[in-house]
This record gives sequence, C-alpha cells and structure tokens, in this order.
Amino acid sequence: MSNKLKVGFIGLGIMGQSMAGHLLAAGHPLNVFNRSKAKTNDLVAKGAKWFDTIGDLAAESDVIITMVGYPSDVEQVYFGAGNILDRAKNAYLIDMTTSSPSLAKRIAEEAEKRGCHSLDAPVSGGDIGARNAKLSIMVGGKQADFDAVLPVLKIMGTNVVLQGGPGAGQHTKMCNQIVIAGTIMGVAEGLGYAKSVGLNPETVMESIGGGAASGFQLLNLGAKMIVGDYAPGFYVEHFLKDLGIALEEADKVKLELPALALAKKLYEELVAKGCSRDGTQVIYTRYIK
Amino acid sequence: MSNKLKVGFIGLGIMGQSMAGHLLAAGHPLNVFNRSKAKTNDLVAKGAKWFDTIGDLAAESDVIITMVGYPSDVEQVYFGAGNILDRAKNAYLIDMTTSSPSLAKRIAEEAEKRGCHSLDAPVSGGDIGARNAKLSIMVGGKQADFDAVLPVLKIMGTNVVLQGGPGAGQHTKMCNQIVIAGTIMGVAEGLGYAKSVGLNPETVMESIGGGAASGFQLLNLGAKMIVGDYAPGFYVEHFLKDLGIALEEADKVKLELPALALAKKLYEELVAKGCSRDGTQVIYTRYIK
Repeated sequence: MSNKLKVGFIGLGIMGQSMAGHLLAAGHPLNVFNRSKAKTNDLVAKGAKWFDTIGDLAAESDVIITMVGYPSDVEQVYFGAGNILDRAKNAYLIDMTTSSPSLAKRIAEEAEKRGCHSLDAPVSGGDIGARNAKLSIMVGGKQADFDAVLPVLKIMGTNVVLQGGPGAGQHTKMCNQIVIAGTIMGVAEGLGYAKSVGLNPETVMESIGGGAASGFQLLNLGAKMIVGDYAPGFYVEHFLKDLGIALEEADKVKLELPALALAKKLYEELVAKGCSRDGTQVIYTRYIK
Repeated sequence: MSNKLKVGFIGLGIMGQSMAGHLLAAGHPLNVFNRSKAKTNDLVAKGAKWFDTIGDLAAESDVIITMVGYPSDVEQVYFGAGNILDRAKNAYLIDMTTSSPSLAKRIAEEAEKRGCHSLDAPVSGGDIGARNAKLSIMVGGKQADFDAVLPVLKIMGTNVVLQGGPGAGQHTKMCNQIVIAGTIMGVAEGLGYAKSVGLNPETVMESIGGGAASGFQLLNLGAKMIVGDYAPGFYVEHFLKDLGIALEEADKVKLELPALALAKKLYEELVAKGCSRDGTQVIYTRYIK
C-alpha cells in the first residue's frame, strides 16, 4: 500500500479531471466524487475510487480537494449536513474553486474547531495550465498547513505561493481577475475602435502587439476577437461570478473600483444577450456593428 | 556633400533629440528648430544646422519631421502663416506627434494641393525606445510616400508599419492608447485591492505576474505603483490628451467606449489634484489610503 497521502477530489470538471489525474499519476491514492458520475469514469478506470457521497469520501481522505463551480456549491459541500466538515477527520481541506474570501475564512474557522486544516488555493492558468500541471496556485492559510500539502500542490502547479492567512488565496485570485477585467475592456475597445475607423485589426496588432499595450489578453484574446472566435477559454458566467465576488469584497473594505464595476455591468449585459457560455472575449461584439 | 535626404526636425524634446541624433549619426544632413533653442545645442555641436524659423527650415529640407506636443502645436507648425505648408517644396512631411487623425487628414489634403507628400507617423516605445532606435512607428499615408521615406523611418524604429491612408497612423496609435487606458485601470484597481484587503502586493505579483493578467502595464507600471514610484515614463497630461482625441474620434463614428470614457474621467480627476506631470501609474493613488 502507498504511504502517500490519500487524496479525495470533489469536482471533476475539465480542470479537476486534469488535476486529479496528475495526483493519481504521482502515486497518490485518489478518491473521487462528482455531481455527474460519468466525468469520473476515466479516473476510476485508472485506479481512482468512486464514492457515492461527499461525506464518505471525506471520512476516508487525508487531503480533500474541492474544485466546484460557485461559492454556493462550496458552501454546500463543506457545510451541508453530512458533508466535508461533518465527516473529515484531522484532514487537510483545500478549496481550489475560485470563491469568496469571506467564505474561505468561515471554512477555516469551522475547520479549526473540528480539528481539520483548511487552505484556500484557487488557481489560474485555465484548462491548459491544468492539463500541463503548470497552474499558478494562490494559497491562503497557515504556514504549517501550507508546508504539509505543498508537495501535493506542486504536482498540479509550477507557481505555488502562500499569500497570507485564510482567504488570502482567494483575495489574490480576485486581484488577478480585477486586472483582467480592466485589461479585456481596453483590448476590446481598442480593437473595436480599429475596426470602426476602418483599420485592419490584424495590421494594428503588428504595430501594438509588442509594446506598452501588450500582454496576455491582447495577444491571446485580442487575436481571437479579430477573427470572431468566441469559443470559451474562460466562460463569461464564471468571470461574472468572480467580478461579483471581487466587488462585494471591495465594498467590505470601502474601496471603490469603478472599472471593475463597469466590467461587471458590461458582462451582465452580455449574459442578458445569451453569451453566458461564450468566452470572455465575446465582449468585443459590443464594439462592432 | 552627402547625397542623403536633408531632414528638417521640428520639436527636439527628450524623444525628438534621440530620434534626430540617430538621423544625424546615419549621415543625414539635419536642420533643426525648437521653441526652446537650448535643446538643440547638442545636435548643433554634432553638425546640425539651426534655423530661426520653421518656414526657413521647411524651405531647405527634403523631409520635414515634426515631433511636438499637442494637436494645437501641430496645427500651428503646419498651418501657421509662413510655416511648413507655406514654405515646403515638394517635400515629405512626417508628423510623428501623437495627434488627431482628423488633423492628419487635413494636413494630407493641404499637402497634396501644394505638391508635398504627407505621412502621419506617431510612435510608441517612449524615451527608451527613441534612445535605442527601437520605436514602433505607425504610419498613415500613400504607399509610394511610405516607401520613399521608409529608410529614414527605419533609422529611428524597428517596427515600421503602414496602416492605411492619411490618419491611419494616428488611429493606430489611438488603438494602442485605448488598450492601455483599460489595462492601467485594471492594474491599479487590482493592486489597490490587494493593498486594501491586507495582501502584500509584491507577493501578489509573484502569483499573477506570469499569467492571464500579465503584460507590460502590470510588470512595468504595476511594479512602480507598489513601491510608490510615480516618476513620469509617460506624463498624465499627455495621456489625457490622447484619451481625449480617441474619444472624439470614436464619437465621430458613433462608437461608445465606456472604459475609455471612465479612464478619461479618472485622469481628469488626477489632473485636478495636481498630477499632470506625474507618470500614468499615479492612478494607483486613487485606490490607496
């Protein structure tokens, strides 16, 4: 039998499947649960153990990783009767969902009362980063707990940084999303302007793609905008969730973020137009006829 | 005597001095004029010829380059009585100031009537790009005129692209500034949020500096924000000028750019607080206590 930590993984979407697969490949016994069982088939075929309930999985795992959709899902899997906090025993609880910093603090307080160790550890890098085990993992929690699970996190990511106490990982992810919110508006407006005044956006990219306007959003999502490719790298509805969390947290510290508020409004308008499941670059459509 | 094109250079600020210096070093006879004569002393010492009036300089130059401050300055040096358009003879007129696309078209029309060749050719890359002759030069005008002066432009820049007819160079520069406007708001808000919620912005940069939020503004100006360095790489007052031009041009094609409009408002507030001569990264101060 392996002496490696037994990992329970809850939430096997596109990213979760890749991340859990790396843990399994690295020799960790893997327990899995997902709302839609079919998504765990590949992992089970490779040796993962399926559990019918989150509680049973939690009771038999040393480390419990959650990678679900919304803060409401996180709340449910942690606080729902018979779920993680009711059943985990002296375990490391790692929420890798992008979720609310305030909720992360609540989980940490409750976990401590029950003798568990909690970390919030959202990621960036998307499905490609997950597939290549090159995620950036932003962690909030206690140093000792971070140290204990760092070898596990390093199986999934190349840039694993402890940012502070409980909630600091989520706060850091919010910083990332806030920067992106302003940037993607700028990219969409700049390229939309190009098109509106009769320039060739591809030629414009030759001039501006290497200078002070340049960055991941311009080079990657800008390139998709100008060819009309709105396939999701990151869903509008998930981005909007993040923007909402960030605005709520900013309100709590009485910080006004007008560009973030504007981005939230524009993405809400896109959702109203049926763009929830498009990629975030669909904001470009606002600026073209 | 050199058989190289005789270049007249008007506007020898920090960037103009570097650019003109490269032309001189490449063997072009150089005529210079500047409102403040002292700024041409170094060039004159190296062989440039000073002219007391723009008109006299224009009359004796094959190529006339302008690199002045505002569209009103451009208008004055081109259309003012006895200035460029009154005196230039069959010359190539290249306005490298970041200025209005509509004004560029007006200059091109008037130049054509008088048998001159006009190009708008604003740059990006800042004083460092000018010093290292690595500017990105965005050009609007006729292909034949572009071809004729391309060897001259390549002495100052590494990325010289014809973007379309008259005004297209200025429009492309506007695209660049519009992207930056959104991006720098995002960077300032993300890092301001970090500080407000108690994170260490330098540690946050470790997590977010290499991913989807990354780019020139975050890595360069973000790094200055978090150490409180507001020394100008690019002046607030010049950026605000550009944002104003871009908004005006967008209005002309009935394109609404709410993020650009917001950036203009925030930078106007900074000017009202006395930040005109700070660098654009001073927008960060809005988000910290």
